[in-house]
Amino acid sequence: MKPSNKKSWRYRLHEIIYEADTPMGKLFDVTLLILILLSIVFVMLESVHEFDLKYHKLLYIGEWIITIFFTIEYIARIITVKKPRAYIFSFYGIIDFLSTIPLYLSFIFAGSSFLLSVRALRLLRVFRILKITRYIGEASKLRKALMNSKAKIFVFLFAVLIISVIAGTLMYIIEGPENGFTSIPVSVYWCIVTLTTVGFGDIAPTTPLGQLLATLIMILGYGIIAVPTGIVSAEYSRRMEKKDVLGQDYVHVNTQACPNCGAQRHRDDAKYCHKCGERLNPHNHVET
Amino acid sequence: MKPSNKKSWRYRLHEIIYEADTPMGKLFDVTLLILILLSIVFVMLESVHEFDLKYHKLLYIGEWIITIFFTIEYIARIITVKKPRAYIFSFYGIIDFLSTIPLYLSFIFAGSSFLLSVRALRLLRVFRILKITRYIGEASKLRKALMNSKAKIFVFLFAVLIISVIAGTLMYIIEGPENGFTSIPVSVYWCIVTLTTVGFGDIAPTTPLGQLLATLIMILGYGIIAVPTGIVSAEYSRRMEKKDVLGQDYVHVNTQACPNCGAQRHRDDAKYCHKCGERLNPHNHVET
Amino acid sequence: MKPSNKKSWRYRLHEIIYEADTPMGKLFDVTLLILILLSIVFVMLESVHEFDLKYHKLLYIGEWIITIFFTIEYIARIITVKKPRAYIFSFYGIIDFLSTIPLYLSFIFAGSSFLLSVRALRLLRVFRILKITRYIGEASKLRKALMNSKAKIFVFLFAVLIISVIAGTLMYIIEGPENGFTSIPVSVYWCIVTLTTVGFGDIAPTTPLGQLLATLIMILGYGIIAVPTGIVSAEYSRRMEKKDVLGQDYVHVNTQACPNCGAQRHRDDAKYCHKCGERLNPHNHVET
Amino acid sequence: MKPSNKKSWRYRLHEIIYEADTPMGKLFDVTLLILILLSIVFVMLESVHEFDLKYHKLLYIGEWIITIFFTIEYIARIITVKKPRAYIFSFYGIIDFLSTIPLYLSFIFAGSSFLLSVRALRLLRVFRILKITRYIGEASKLRKALMNSKAKIFVFLFAVLIISVIAGTLMYIIEGPENGFTSIPVSVYWCIVTLTTVGFGDIAPTTPLGQLLATLIMILGYGIIAVPTGIVSAEYSRRMEKKDVLGQDYVHVNTQACPNCGAQRHRDDAKYCHKCGERLNPHNHVET
Repeated sequence: MKPSNKKSWRYRLHEIIYEADTPMGKLFDVTLLILILLSIVFVMLESVHEFDLKYHKLLYIGEWIITIFFTIEYIARIITVKKPRAYIFSFYGIIDFLSTIPLYLSFIFAGSSFLLSVRALRLLRVFRILKITRYIGEASKLRKALMNSKAKIFVFLFAVLIISVIAGTLMYIIEGPENGFTSIPVSVYWCIVTLTTVGFGDIAPTTPLGQLLATLIMILGYGIIAVPTGIVSAEYSRRMEKKDVLGQDYVHVNTQACPNCGAQRHRDDAKYCHKCGERLNPHNHVET
Repeated sequence: MKPSNKKSWRYRLHEIIYEADTPMGKLFDVTLLILILLSIVFVMLESVHEFDLKYHKLLYIGEWIITIFFTIEYIARIITVKKPRAYIFSFYGIIDFLSTIPLYLSFIFAGSSFLLSVRALRLLRVFRILKITRYIGEASKLRKALMNSKAKIFVFLFAVLIISVIAGTLMYIIEGPENGFTSIPVSVYWCIVTLTTVGFGDIAPTTPLGQLLATLIMILGYGIIAVPTGIVSAEYSRRMEKKDVLGQDYVHVNTQACPNCGAQRHRDDAKYCHKCGERLNPHNHVET
Repeated sequence: MKPSNKKSWRYRLHEIIYEADTPMGKLFDVTLLILILLSIVFVMLESVHEFDLKYHKLLYIGEWIITIFFTIEYIARIITVKKPRAYIFSFYGIIDFLSTIPLYLSFIFAGSSFLLSVRALRLLRVFRILKITRYIGEASKLRKALMNSKAKIFVFLFAVLIISVIAGTLMYIIEGPENGFTSIPVSVYWCIVTLTTVGFGDIAPTTPLGQLLATLIMILGYGIIAVPTGIVSAEYSRRMEKKDVLGQDYVHVNTQACPNCGAQRHRDDAKYCHKCGERLNPHNHVET
Repeated sequence: MKPSNKKSWRYRLHEIIYEADTPMGKLFDVTLLILILLSIVFVMLESVHEFDLKYHKLLYIGEWIITIFFTIEYIARIITVKKPRAYIFSFYGIIDFLSTIPLYLSFIFAGSSFLLSVRALRLLRVFRILKITRYIGEASKLRKALMNSKAKIFVFLFAVLIISVIAGTLMYIIEGPENGFTSIPVSVYWCIVTLTTVGFGDIAPTTPLGQLLATLIMILGYGIIAVPTGIVSAEYSRRMEKKDVLGQDYVHVNTQACPNCGAQRHRDDAKYCHKCGERLNPHNHVET
């Protein structure tokens, strides 16, 4: 086993694991996706008592196969990545670790079988397959729209909380423990159930005054729902308009001039001049 | 019965069945619409036990009349259409077949009477009457808006699923089978019921921690509803704006040339040349 | 009682009843509004058994006072209006008649006391007070926005119905009468309850397959809600934009020229030239 | 204790209480925020019977500490503010008073312990910390958007009320007291529960006709929710667009003129003249 050979072997493995462009990489991603979904189905079925009684052994074996695959995958990822430490403490690194360890832990500790559900987060890795920029673009756009609306959403949640605390306390005073509003926290919980128009009905006002207040809360909730919708809607509209006006092929250009030929309007992320191929000065925007 | 006569007969039948412009065609469409609605009412009433006991014979006879009409219609469609094979395997062809066969099948097999409900899909054929472009335009616009938002909707559904699986498992751990959360699939079901603000209340959290998590799920659901709304809203707005930019005075022109003076860019609904007054060929678009 | 005197008396009464600009007219409108609200409160309180037992006589007397006032008002309206026939068969004329007659009818027939609730429609007359154009403007704008979206709303309702009929029948097959889905109409009813995210919980799926289908219906309903919202939102946005661009004082002008002085840019609804007072040709737009 | 000394002491206290820029001011605001949240937690926990039984003494002492702090704060605010009368009768002044007094009152009167919940309104004071203009900007923008939509919201609420009263009465007639619709007010309450898509399910129609009417109410409610959402959405969009038109590089300028060179159009937050560097008069806007 020569070091050069080992290097190419490690490189090839890296390609399979981290890239979805090669046939082997695609196969790896699809296999992983299926195993993740299977493992989640296993966790779910395990919780169904009648099913667990019949097929406990099958589920156990299945779980072991998946865990072993995940263990190999986790080790392979650490070996092939350039900065193992960065991977281990990254978001996906932690998830990979948490989705590998539960069965081993269940040997040591009892009752830790529910930790397996953390594996659901592995589903996020599915997005690696969807390397088509459009899909990732959508996800990041959604995140950006939410980030931009952060302040508004904060104000909105605050308003919901203040209304719920006040209205919940009033309902506790009006209806009282004899009608299901056993304490203020429970009343506040009921209030949020009502404001968000969920309305379980496990607790419901029975006194006329309580029903009147409930009516006000419901109409308020019905109106409040318009606020986040309006925010996201407006934010999204703005984003779309920009995209529309500029066109999909639009790329941001900067004011940098090529130090060799003087060509301008380079792409913001350009490293070499698009005209003469000269290396551009990094982050050295020359105003023209 | 001469072939030429037969041809004209077939042509006339085609006109009646496939076009809604002639009085006979309209009559056929309205009759069909009424029979479709009647057949659905029959299917529904049959399921109401008290009604079925009293009027079973009436429903049975009615069902036979409708089935015979549908059989004739199905055969007529195959005979009169140019490409019978294309029709048979088309969306509406399959629906027509499925809405004709159930009663015949119920002779052979027992308990297949519910297959009749597939007939509801025949309601889609109602849109054939609404041949006014506006109505079809709306439906196709809606479909296009949904198609354009496909990627976003996929990401959105994925997010809902991931949240439901994780939160459902947590609720199963917190509340447990003794509070109605009998298994993880049931918990995930409850989670979707809550996230979508439906809130049946057949299962409801009773522990303080469960109610706290439920509160978070509800507020999340309340916020998430803004995402599809915002997407459709923005997509729709954009479509409308485009229509607006063109202005209300904008009229669709076609590529037809006047057979007399050769003037072009006539209005789509023009019958006479706007320049020389010559009668234009109906539906005879000459590409220039 | 001279005819001239009578005419002026009739004219003054007309002013009081039909206009809200004079102090007497305002007083009349406010009195009417209070009586309408009172009569509705009476109808409601009458239905509360405990209250009716105690204060039946009071409610009865109050109802008589209101009915007599409404009778006088109805007769006064007929007398003072120029075209009594047009008023009697107008929307408000019918409502006025229906809100006057119930008590008289209850003398003749028994159990017709609920007809009084039609009086709620009299609340629409409240808008007469709100003669400030802004309020009426809003209401008519809402109506226009709904009218413009008519075709879309029709398509949307049709889609909801088709989904409900199909899904309802499937739920009836899956869950069956033993789980509360006693018939297809009841299943369709449950389906609409679920699709609209109301979720009473009086009927709820209990089989795993039923819960799976319910999940799909809920997510569909969650997504469908975006459609009418998006439609109204976009329609409203467009209206607002136009108003914004044009300003609130903007009035549509046409290209008509005054036949006397040749002044142009008359208001679309102008009957006389704004410059020389000459009568304009009705609907005779002269292109300039 | 010299008057000059006292004045500076009062000034420093004012700075601490009313401003969040100094370290002491920030500390004061954070302390206040924690105490407000704590006091609300105390009020809530007090209502939880099992908790109150165990830790009643602790809650009582905690409540006293908070009350004493609020008393000191209230007195300090009156002393340090320039116009004590204006503060006392201002929104926050009344809230401060109401959040201080309950425990004192509970000495005199019994059963007034629920007045403590008014303290939740003190949470509004949290916004004082969030003096970053962005957050306040958002809140005031939301308020402005609501103010602008006032007329529309009024029309919308009126429509909801009219529908609920009519439909509620009809449901009372159809279902009657034997199915839970005990009186018209209860039916109207149920109607609002249904229209707003909350759907508790404590009352649910059981007759076919009642379920049909409920279906119509639900679809109406499902459609009506689009109206406030559309309004807020459109209003918000318009506001955003305006902001967009002005561009992100836009900075508010005031009408102040430089006392040295007379240059105008300084940034609102400018401290020195952008032309000559002269110190500008703080808050001394000279109209030009």
